[in-house]
Amino acid sequence: MRIVVLAGGIGGARFLRGLKRAAPDAEITVIGNTGDDIHLFGLKVCPDLDTVMYTLGGGINEEQGWGREDESFTVKEELAAYGVGPEWFGLGDRDFATHIVRTQMLGAGYPLSAVTEALCARWRPGVRLLPMSDDRIETHVAIETDDGEQRAVHFQEYWVKLRAAVDAKAVVPVGAEQAKPAPGVLEAIAEADLILFPPSNPVVSVGTILAVPGIREAVASAAAPVVGLSPIVGDAPVRGMADKVLAAVGVEATAAAVAAHYGAGLLDGWLVDTVDAGTVADVETAGIRCRAVPLMMTDLDTTAAMAREALTLAEEVRAADTDADTSEGGAGA
Amino acid sequence: MRIVVLAGGIGGARFLRGLKRAAPDAEITVIGNTGDDIHLFGLKVCPDLDTVMYTLGGGINEEQGWGREDESFTVKEELAAYGVGPEWFGLGDRDFATHIVRTQMLGAGYPLSAVTEALCARWRPGVRLLPMSDDRIETHVAIETDDGEQRAVHFQEYWVKLRAAVDAKAVVPVGAEQAKPAPGVLEAIAEADLILFPPSNPVVSVGTILAVPGIREAVASAAAPVVGLSPIVGDAPVRGMADKVLAAVGVEATAAAVAAHYGAGLLDGWLVDTVDAGTVADVETAGIRCRAVPLMMTDLDTTAAMAREALTLAEEVRAADTDADTSEGGAGA
Repeated sequence: MRIVVLAGGIGGARFLRGLKRAAPDAEITVIGNTGDDIHLFGLKVCPDLDTVMYTLGGGINEEQGWGREDESFTVKEELAAYGVGPEWFGLGDRDFATHIVRTQMLGAGYPLSAVTEALCARWRPGVRLLPMSDDRIETHVAIETDDGEQRAVHFQEYWVKLRAAVDAKAVVPVGAEQAKPAPGVLEAIAEADLILFPPSNPVVSVGTILAVPGIREAVASAAAPVVGLSPIVGDAPVRGMADKVLAAVGVEATAAAVAAHYGAGLLDGWLVDTVDAGTVADVETAGIRCRAVPLMMTDLDTTAAMAREALTLAEEVRAADTDADTSEGGAGA
Repeated sequence: MRIVVLAGGIGGARFLRGLKRAAPDAEITVIGNTGDDIHLFGLKVCPDLDTVMYTLGGGINEEQGWGREDESFTVKEELAAYGVGPEWFGLGDRDFATHIVRTQMLGAGYPLSAVTEALCARWRPGVRLLPMSDDRIETHVAIETDDGEQRAVHFQEYWVKLRAAVDAKAVVPVGAEQAKPAPGVLEAIAEADLILFPPSNPVVSVGTILAVPGIREAVASAAAPVVGLSPIVGDAPVRGMADKVLAAVGVEATAAAVAAHYGAGLLDGWLVDTVDAGTVADVETAGIRCRAVPLMMTDLDTTAAMAREALTLAEEVRAADTDADTSEGGAGA
């Protein structure tokens, strides 16, 4: 079975670990968000790609969910001694090596997809990890400062430095309009047996991937079922500050509202947490098959169970489609 | 007093420490060799400039003479885990930060001289450190491999990887012909009260600096005395493998031969070690005032004493010039 997953950072990476457990024989292609990539110290940093790579490759700092385990911060301290920042972005020594290799390869002319493949040759994540695009796309967030001034900041500045403490007025994937999907992305979507939206941020992770021209259309027209898992449980994000950026695009921070935001044109199935069982009927009314199951990724077992529920829901979608095809066929016979 | 020093790496840096002690009120300008600069991992590494900066700024690894004290090698280990080398060049984590800052600034368009000044703002070496040129110059060494093949390798590959174990057939400062002295270099030489060649490598350190068009001429025509200290004691280099590259330019590894290599056109005074007292007369016959004094930089005291001897010899040169001017004046009256 060929599974395509549109993944952001921590949530996507953890879900993928569960998915690998749930479907050990599947060929998994991960289309990674690169909208939160940032140039720091002259180096190209790809936080979401690296989080997926480190998590699946066994190098992640489990506690914080990003960065390398057993990390030191000598380089960062030295940069600070030179007065070179930003200091709010936590790059460790091990992590620096990844960005140095990436920047060197990009400088030598390799596209990001080839660089990512080369980095994965070390980490062997057990999935094919593709950046959504080889072109530079940077998610910017429009904010209003305390003195009423409007300005746009890089997503990382909004998320990490400002901790999303001010309201996001708009979220713009700068460069997306001119970007092309990376080699293999559209093919993987077209050939997939299943497409999954993990419980990643629907605006700045999955939404950014879908903003690359051609990807949304490919997902919408794919033969495979498209099943998503809600990143909102009750009235709050499972982790992170998704509510902040959902507000910027006028979407309520509820599982049902996120499903409606994706829409029946994209989603065939949607998993909400058991605490949101009351919204299942609403989602189904909107034309999206919905089930309420435990959605807390507390450990690998619960995460694998979530992935299994997504596979089961996909089977239901497929069966329903087949039934529909059969009835249509029957009607036409 | 304004002193200009043409410096290589370890020998030059240690001598400078002694000179600062010997002439605490002097304004010292160091013209640093950049011919052994190398691009590693996409980063610009300037070993000689950094050795001077770290040594005078109190950050040097005293035992090895280069690199940072209290150093760790996490980044390098990680790069090796990615299969990215070379592994023979010992870049530590603290050192990496310097190269990251430098590369970022160069990438932003600053010339190396401005970058060096910015780095020195942290280290406060107590001297003005100028790269010999803002243009890229790379010293290459022509070697003959065991199977008789001739090839050219970067100086660092010859020195660090091959440990100068094969004969150097030629030493070429690639790019020097098209290079210009960095801003301030020619002015510093012209305005100097004293110009010193420390016991640095006469071929790949001082020789490379002199290979930048305009610098040799400026030194030769400078009003100030030019005094050098022999890097060869007895029949061997004090440290390093200067004999290997001296052979490539057809110069014997003796204090007198190195003096003759620079020549009376450049040098006004030359210090040899006491063990080479027998060559003083030869050097003086060649028109270079010469003294035999202890030249082993075993500690700061002995190094400062060497620097004092150089200052004394410079005074002798100056006095002799004044005498000569006076006699000439007398003859003309």
